[in-house]
Amino acid sequence: MYKAKVYVTFKEGILDPQGKAIKGSLLTLGYDETEDVRIGKFIELQLETVNKVTAEVRVKEMCEKLLANTVIEDYTFEIEEVEQ
Amino acid sequence: MYKAKVYVTFKEGILDPQGKAIKGSLLTLGYDETEDVRIGKFIELQLETVNKVTAEVRVKEMCEKLLANTVIEDYTFEIEEVEQ
Repeated sequence: MYKAKVYVTFKEGILDPQGKAIKGSLLTLGYDETEDVRIGKFIELQLETVNKVTAEVRVKEMCEKLLANTVIEDYTFEIEEVEQ
Repeated sequence: MYKAKVYVTFKEGILDPQGKAIKGSLLTLGYDETEDVRIGKFIELQLETVNKVTAEVRVKEMCEKLLANTVIEDYTFEIEEVEQ
C-alpha cells in the first residue's frame, strides 16, 4: 500500500481571495508579521499499486485529469510506502 | 523572512464528504487502486518575524485560533527561512 500526499496551489499571479481573507483576519487578530497567505489543497491518497513507480505514474495522471486544474493550479506530490 | 507551510486535515473518524466524492470520481475514471482519499488544506504563510522560534510560536497560535478548527481538525506545520 502506498500513500500519496498531493499539494495543489494556485499558480503565481492567480488571485487567491480565500488567502487574502485569511490574511485580513490574521492582521485583525494582531499578527502583524503576516506578509502573505496562500491557500491550497492537501490531498492524501491511499493506493493499492504493485510498486512505487506505478503509484507515481498514476498519481501524476490523477493530478492532470482531476485533482488539479492545471490552467490555474500547480501540483506537487510525494509517495511513501505504508503498512496495510 | 520565514515561510510556514501548514497542513490542516480532518481528525480520524470525522467524515470527509469531499474526499469521498473525489474517490468516487477516481474510481469512475478507472483508478481502481484508490482505497481512500482525504482532503485537507495547505496554507502557505510569509512571515516577517525576528527569528524562527518566534515564527513557530506565532504559527502555532494562528493554527489554534484561526487556521484549524481543532475540534475536528489536526494541523502540522514546518517553517523555513526564505530570501526576502
